[in-house]
Amino acid sequence: MAATEVLNGVNYFEGVEKLLEIWFTTSDGNHKSADLRRIPRAKLESLMKIVRCEIISFVKNEQIDAYVLSESSMFVSKRRFILKTCGTTTPLLCLEPLLLMAEQYAGFTEVEDLYYSRKNFKRPDLQVMPHQHFDQEVALLDTLFPDGAAYCLGAVNRDCWYLYTFNPLPHRLPTLPNPDEPDQTLEIMMTDLDPEIMSIFTKEECLNATEATKKAGIDKIIPNMIIDDFLFDPCGYSMNGVTKNICSDLEDGCYMTIHITPEPDFSYVSFETNIPSSSYKEIITNVLETFNPGKFTVTVFSNQLSPTKDTSKEVLFLNQLGDWQRRDVQQCSIKNYDLVYAFFCRFPS
Amino acid sequence: MAATEVLNGVNYFEGVEKLLEIWFTTSDGNHKSADLRRIPRAKLESLMKIVRCEIISFVKNEQIDAYVLSESSMFVSKRRFILKTCGTTTPLLCLEPLLLMAEQYAGFTEVEDLYYSRKNFKRPDLQVMPHQHFDQEVALLDTLFPDGAAYCLGAVNRDCWYLYTFNPLPHRLPTLPNPDEPDQTLEIMMTDLDPEIMSIFTKEECLNATEATKKAGIDKIIPNMIIDDFLFDPCGYSMNGVTKNICSDLEDGCYMTIHITPEPDFSYVSFETNIPSSSYKEIITNVLETFNPGKFTVTVFSNQLSPTKDTSKEVLFLNQLGDWQRRDVQQCSIKNYDLVYAFFCRFPS
Repeated sequence: MAATEVLNGVNYFEGVEKLLEIWFTTSDGNHKSADLRRIPRAKLESLMKIVRCEIISFVKNEQIDAYVLSESSMFVSKRRFILKTCGTTTPLLCLEPLLLMAEQYAGFTEVEDLYYSRKNFKRPDLQVMPHQHFDQEVALLDTLFPDGAAYCLGAVNRDCWYLYTFNPLPHRLPTLPNPDEPDQTLEIMMTDLDPEIMSIFTKEECLNATEATKKAGIDKIIPNMIIDDFLFDPCGYSMNGVTKNICSDLEDGCYMTIHITPEPDFSYVSFETNIPSSSYKEIITNVLETFNPGKFTVTVFSNQLSPTKDTSKEVLFLNQLGDWQRRDVQQCSIKNYDLVYAFFCRFPS
Repeated sequence: MAATEVLNGVNYFEGVEKLLEIWFTTSDGNHKSADLRRIPRAKLESLMKIVRCEIISFVKNEQIDAYVLSESSMFVSKRRFILKTCGTTTPLLCLEPLLLMAEQYAGFTEVEDLYYSRKNFKRPDLQVMPHQHFDQEVALLDTLFPDGAAYCLGAVNRDCWYLYTFNPLPHRLPTLPNPDEPDQTLEIMMTDLDPEIMSIFTKEECLNATEATKKAGIDKIIPNMIIDDFLFDPCGYSMNGVTKNICSDLEDGCYMTIHITPEPDFSYVSFETNIPSSSYKEIITNVLETFNPGKFTVTVFSNQLSPTKDTSKEVLFLNQLGDWQRRDVQQCSIKNYDLVYAFFCRFPS
């Protein structure tokens, strides 16, 4: 979503993000006194240097520190770390220093769950090691997490979504509750977007991020969010939202994040939230109406305690959703989580 | 399942099969007068030369011609062609000549559905082009079927199962009924098998295939089958079964096939059938009790008209099945078919 880079003489920006989510714990499962937010800002900044990006904005509520980055976003809460970076960033290179910082500053000695995921890149050839191929990423992750499992959902030779997950088996962490809190994540990754809508996210059409957020209707997708938005020059947009602490307990600590690469030749928009909902149909519909993509991928993770567990995924099993026809749908069980992946194209494509 | 090959000085045989299944039709969807069984035997033999194997036995019923091959099996019925070959065979190389033969001798001008699948090889390095890597196989298939989709179910970096499928969209074949007959396939791919059971499938322990079939209890897995079995020298076993025409209409034209690579260092057994059943639990349990594997992969395909549609897959969603713990389960929709993939390991592994 940052301004276009010129790489090897190519005018291209890879909007597709690499998404890393880590849940930490301690060896005895007691993590009351540990907190990732004790990692000093300077340390987070040095971590972002390794990833090849930087912090450009910050907002927080009681549960979550939300950072807008030059390439996407970072969310730090008590025991969950989320890093989502686009372009030619290298998030997997920060894993080892991150694990050390989590121990040294935050008091976490164990990874309870790790998820690394991304859509297939449009231009993998422009990525740098170890992100040029999923096999490369898996090889690196396998050296750090010997029990990790790598999946590819969707069509390997068309649009697909890669996931690496490390969920130590119960015998590795004997006292771990299973699961101990509701959790869910909805992601929508859109390509071939409406050029008129995309033009909102340029300095030519909007003076600043606030104007773009309002004009596109982003503030209405999920209400009651503290919004931290950024409009790049000459184009590109990022926003983080964290729930205002007036919400229900269930919604406390929730976030949403949107990143937009508006250039017509490689337009890309991503939406992500962990807000609980008994049906994601309304949010998905809001997002599709806001951005009007030609194609989109949806993923929903939900654990057994999540209110989204049963109904949120139903919409993905529809052959048709508004103007879009489903091309692929897959379901997968990962430890305590159900995962649904679906890919839709505008009909007729 | 054939005798061990010595390849590049390595004493190894790849039991894992490459499985090709093609359903043919005509451009107007009317295929009453077409029949794949009109392809002359000599032409099938020349096809097997390209695949690097040969026909060694034959049995038939009214619906299906079943061939035991030097490397696994081939089933030819009116409009469905199934080729399942292990070792270092090259089934994808026979696609172009097969499509020509289907047109020239059988009267079929169109592929209605194509499935190419296999488990990950234990020794991909010993395979020959284009079977050394799934990407290679996909690249070849993509040149023939531009709308084909490639999937990988299970963990890419551990045990997984590859599938390439070509199912022309309705607009390509406008008059095609959708679907026009019940269809289902159950496959069980087993590794790390019980050495005592495996020793049955050697010339040392059994004089001939009939003895091995009885001793192992293979004839009891699905009763009422005409069995064509073969015991290789010094070891290895193959069998095809086709339903006796005393069965119900539903079971007419059904087959089963088992292939066994008994060597302890790389033991592998595959089981496959298209017999309809409202629950596959009994068949799966029979197969597991017969062969006692350390690990196994199950796949179930069923279309909307199949009696197995709703209940056959339930067993795969159990965390535990007898002595085996489920490690992976995935579900996928492919045209008219539901596909379930599951991978189990003996507990504790």
